[in-house]
Amino acid sequence: MQLATGIKSKIVLHIRNGNQEKKADAIACEEPLEIKLAFGPAGQREHRSLAITMRTPGQDEVLALGFLFTEGIIGRATEVTGIRHVGQALSPESAENILLVELSPDTPVDFEQLNRHFYTSSSCGVCGKASIEMLRTVNLYYPQQGFPVFSLSQILSFQQQMSGKQNLFDQTGGIHAAASFDENGKLLFLQEDVGRHNAMDKLIGQTLRFGQFPMRNQAIMVSGRLSFELVQKAAMAGVPLLAAVGAPSSLAVELAESHGMTLIGFLRGKRFNVYCGQERVKL
Amino acid sequence: MQLATGIKSKIVLHIRNGNQEKKADAIACEEPLEIKLAFGPAGQREHRSLAITMRTPGQDEVLALGFLFTEGIIGRATEVTGIRHVGQALSPESAENILLVELSPDTPVDFEQLNRHFYTSSSCGVCGKASIEMLRTVNLYYPQQGFPVFSLSQILSFQQQMSGKQNLFDQTGGIHAAASFDENGKLLFLQEDVGRHNAMDKLIGQTLRFGQFPMRNQAIMVSGRLSFELVQKAAMAGVPLLAAVGAPSSLAVELAESHGMTLIGFLRGKRFNVYCGQERVKL
Repeated sequence: MQLATGIKSKIVLHIRNGNQEKKADAIACEEPLEIKLAFGPAGQREHRSLAITMRTPGQDEVLALGFLFTEGIIGRATEVTGIRHVGQALSPESAENILLVELSPDTPVDFEQLNRHFYTSSSCGVCGKASIEMLRTVNLYYPQQGFPVFSLSQILSFQQQMSGKQNLFDQTGGIHAAASFDENGKLLFLQEDVGRHNAMDKLIGQTLRFGQFPMRNQAIMVSGRLSFELVQKAAMAGVPLLAAVGAPSSLAVELAESHGMTLIGFLRGKRFNVYCGQERVKL
Repeated sequence: MQLATGIKSKIVLHIRNGNQEKKADAIACEEPLEIKLAFGPAGQREHRSLAITMRTPGQDEVLALGFLFTEGIIGRATEVTGIRHVGQALSPESAENILLVELSPDTPVDFEQLNRHFYTSSSCGVCGKASIEMLRTVNLYYPQQGFPVFSLSQILSFQQQMSGKQNLFDQTGGIHAAASFDENGKLLFLQEDVGRHNAMDKLIGQTLRFGQFPMRNQAIMVSGRLSFELVQKAAMAGVPLLAAVGAPSSLAVELAESHGMTLIGFLRGKRFNVYCGQERVKL
């Protein structure tokens, strides 16, 4: 079996209607990735570990770029002057699992603020409202009111356009996807990962580097459900319409509403639900 | 509409085959929970924030208990001497979102170790193998070889037994579940949450407090997919068999294999796949 990056093969016992069969199956790869930052003015550069995420290998550069952007550490791709794997120095097993991101000398990094950002603010404590308010203070891009508008057939075509490009899902039957669409509803980029937040970060990182950014005339569709975190990432990129196969959480809806986004859930077959921002859906 | 704890109501636009209808929908609640620890000997008690998780409210005590156990901070329920919500002091909105967990004076807490645990170890750096090895050093309970054994019909009954008890899922159509089963395949406890790791922590916390612990003669089944993190939590509780509706990741399988667990995926209708530990499945 020819395996793509991000897939491993494993002999698996299949049980079907009481019958059993052993055969090789493709399984989505999950490995830790440590993202390290090099930052500070020339002559005083510091190296520091930023985060460890469990991800599907193969798109680490755009993953790191998207993560740095959606976490509010960089505002544009040019603030990153280099990205390279540096794990080899530690052990052969780590070779592909430690990524060093060089920030430009004038990009400030506040590790204190990173530790608690988004979820709390001093004015209101720990609550959904505070999480939403906090995002307001760091977000650069808000969608334009009522723009763009997508037709029912465009929205209903999202999943079909994705299904042709979900290479890892086709082989494994179990991996998250996130895809972007232009204002005519045409698929632009698609990314896959065992973690849905990683799939979103990869997509935003890829767009930041290779696409049109901010994403104020694009839509994003994800497999699975919509949490606060996914809406937060899309909001950071200025995405006006976010759709999902699954259900949104209460805080996902409240965040989308407060940022003037359109949120669509249960997009399956000939149906979907619009939770807010219905002016971007042409009925 | 009578709403259960953990559910909010929202007017939603439903699109079906080109027809539209506005109606009230139930949406799974997501709110941040900050878990704080009070620890240290009498007279020198310290308070410190441990973690913030986005969870569905309503089962915070068992969530915190399970989280503390699966993170290796406590080994038994008696190490926790009290749990209470303390957010009210900060603001009305925070009332239910900050939880103070009192640890017994002789339970040590090493915050340094907590920050990097599981994903890295000094011997091998950042890689899946290191993550698995790291778990070996903190895990207390390993399953007994080849015990217990579940029949095909017992395993195939897991999902049906769960579907009758997934109250939040029935109302919202989108929330994760985790359930435990005794060695005869009978459902013991079921927990739901917008985060699958939270559903697992709630289940383990509930068992720690009210059930038979460790869970060495029980099985757990979860909705969705199996990541490293979910297998790690089950492994900490000594669970011998873990099953899921969705696919496992490569690292989930490797971790289960290294701990002598049975891992089952794609458990749907009359079928499932056994990834390792097939001696616990009676064919």
